[in-house]
Amino acid sequence: MMERSGIITLLTDFGQQDGYVGAMKGVMLGLHPTVRLIDISHEVEPQNVHAGAFLLEAHFRYFPPGTVHLAVVDPGVGSERAALACYADEHFFIAPDNGLLDFCLDFSNLQVVRLTQPQYWRQKISATFHGRDLFAPVAAHLAAGESLAHLGELAALQRRRPRLDCRIDGKTLHGQVVYSDRFGNLISNISTPCLREFSQDQPVTIYLAGHLIGGLSKSYADVPPHTPLALIGSFGFLEIAVNLSNARLHFAARYGTPIAVERGQMI
Amino acid sequence: MMERSGIITLLTDFGQQDGYVGAMKGVMLGLHPTVRLIDISHEVEPQNVHAGAFLLEAHFRYFPPGTVHLAVVDPGVGSERAALACYADEHFFIAPDNGLLDFCLDFSNLQVVRLTQPQYWRQKISATFHGRDLFAPVAAHLAAGESLAHLGELAALQRRRPRLDCRIDGKTLHGQVVYSDRFGNLISNISTPCLREFSQDQPVTIYLAGHLIGGLSKSYADVPPHTPLALIGSFGFLEIAVNLSNARLHFAARYGTPIAVERGQMI
Amino acid sequence: MMERSGIITLLTDFGQQDGYVGAMKGVMLGLHPTVRLIDISHEVEPQNVHAGAFLLEAHFRYFPPGTVHLAVVDPGVGSERAALACYADEHFFIAPDNGLLDFCLDFSNLQVVRLTQPQYWRQKISATFHGRDLFAPVAAHLAAGESLAHLGELAALQRRRPRLDCRIDGKTLHGQVVYSDRFGNLISNISTPCLREFSQDQPVTIYLAGHLIGGLSKSYADVPPHTPLALIGSFGFLEIAVNLSNARLHFAARYGTPIAVERGQMI
Repeated sequence: MMERSGIITLLTDFGQQDGYVGAMKGVMLGLHPTVRLIDISHEVEPQNVHAGAFLLEAHFRYFPPGTVHLAVVDPGVGSERAALACYADEHFFIAPDNGLLDFCLDFSNLQVVRLTQPQYWRQKISATFHGRDLFAPVAAHLAAGESLAHLGELAALQRRRPRLDCRIDGKTLHGQVVYSDRFGNLISNISTPCLREFSQDQPVTIYLAGHLIGGLSKSYADVPPHTPLALIGSFGFLEIAVNLSNARLHFAARYGTPIAVERGQMI
Repeated sequence: MMERSGIITLLTDFGQQDGYVGAMKGVMLGLHPTVRLIDISHEVEPQNVHAGAFLLEAHFRYFPPGTVHLAVVDPGVGSERAALACYADEHFFIAPDNGLLDFCLDFSNLQVVRLTQPQYWRQKISATFHGRDLFAPVAAHLAAGESLAHLGELAALQRRRPRLDCRIDGKTLHGQVVYSDRFGNLISNISTPCLREFSQDQPVTIYLAGHLIGGLSKSYADVPPHTPLALIGSFGFLEIAVNLSNARLHFAARYGTPIAVERGQMI
Repeated sequence: MMERSGIITLLTDFGQQDGYVGAMKGVMLGLHPTVRLIDISHEVEPQNVHAGAFLLEAHFRYFPPGTVHLAVVDPGVGSERAALACYADEHFFIAPDNGLLDFCLDFSNLQVVRLTQPQYWRQKISATFHGRDLFAPVAAHLAAGESLAHLGELAALQRRRPRLDCRIDGKTLHGQVVYSDRFGNLISNISTPCLREFSQDQPVTIYLAGHLIGGLSKSYADVPPHTPLALIGSFGFLEIAVNLSNARLHFAARYGTPIAVERGQMI
């Protein structure tokens, strides 16, 4: 019923210089020699759970059902925060209980366990590197076919971060910045279908934290260099960018910075 | 006849922070679960087709025949530029029709198709991410054994970038900068055999955009710190470097900056 | 007896922009199509043999016995330095003879060969890229089951770098900085067991190059921003950090900078 794809994806803020990701992979290959290990990103901004959660939700669906997604952005490592595994939308997820998995609450038939069975961990658990010593071996066992229920005790998934949703309020569509990519482009939580429904394909005017950005552009080059613009980006959401520049720095924007879309075209 | 190695290489300018490469790999593994996925680089300078083409030509030959090389440096994504697959020198290449594959024109028995068969793509094609939605699934089908001819319609490969070749003009060997590596070393299109044929192993004097660089050094440490030098680098081409510094910035050099080699030794 | 895990790990200072690592992988897959290739790091500081040796020793043990660890940080490439393969602690190591493998001297039953059999190399050896042309093919042959003894002639491993060990001198535990991670945290050679034995779990006071750091913290957040601290880090060694800042730059520290631990708590 819960099939396995034989794939584990990795998403961390460990960077690629210091070999931590390699050590995690060594642990997993020792337990599951034929597993396929695919990196999503190891360049999540350190300890930025919001960014990790965004990338996990954005990309997991491109993998086959039965894939195990291992996400370790873990500012609370060493504290009492729980470690979780869950099954949602035909995929498995393993992460600290800190909000990385909040998006799983949108799926029905969600199954969650708190990881409490140390026979699935490395024998010695370091205080600061649960990625290698706890999460990696659990991911390997799960990908190899171990039952989710064996890994710990059934739990309910608790929302750990405030939910940011776009909403329509009279004549305005309100959203927020939820991710900043490597170029400093600001990705919002306003999806293409949501924007279409609001705009009915008529012109709109877009604001970021009260700054007028303008209408919807097709590409960065639609505006002069160093000029702000709004467009639908590769993630499928409304983005605010500055042509040939960094919108995050330009606007001092961050997670939660408000975006407003109004009907009609500013002159 | 056209064997497959079971390997797909990836070369993009997507970077490694935002998870785009992981999504491409998920799509490919869903279609071809046993494929081997090997990264060549995802740190090509954004939209720099010259740099992508250089790296693709430089490295593809180290892979087994029948490997599929997927190259996505795609400033024209969303425009009418075609998408191509070709077979050259016993390897397969998939890329936008923007010059990344110009080097394939040097091979006889070249076969090229324009990718026009959407049954090999993802069902929904985003406007800005053909890497995931079109190129990745086509690569997976091709690596799994699909016939090149089924993927689209036969086409002729058109040169999309001016050809830069080194040439001998009387007493001077003329070349150009074609790539700048991560240290800012300037790699030219003057190959070792070409330089040998010109110099007959006698001393030479090398100029970059009119600046005297000097003779041919063996290693960076042959000259004092912050001093320019010329040597044969790891790519097998004449390189201009500045010991312990960045030659690209030092000389404000770029793709096409001229290099001249003259016989004899400057005093 | 010397089993193989089917895995090769890679540790280099080649970076990820220029495709060199991809070319090495292509060579290995051509010789051993089913080998598993796992990156430990390609972001070792260029030519920093100390850093490469630290990462290799820190991480190899997380891989299954019989893994081949290929380490290429090779400032002497093109000189007469030898190339080595060795077997230690049930793992295989391949590296230039420059100190990367010094830690193997701590293992009994060490077996070492100097790589002198060119039938295991690529036919043409570039002067500057032995990683691709010599080390990679030897690693592939070894991982595929080739006998260590066939690859060259038996040799003795010579220490190439001064040994840095922590030692107790009366009331003081002396150690040194041996690695700086991507955040500039300074990792020492003072292991957790060594520190415990010295401190008997009583308070200690820690100095870096004569600068008072303080006692042992649990986490970075135990001290105010931009304040130095000492803690046990993810590598399992005493680390000196500066909360929200870069300790390496702050203290102008480097490989070998002395660290002293004294019993008792400074007021």
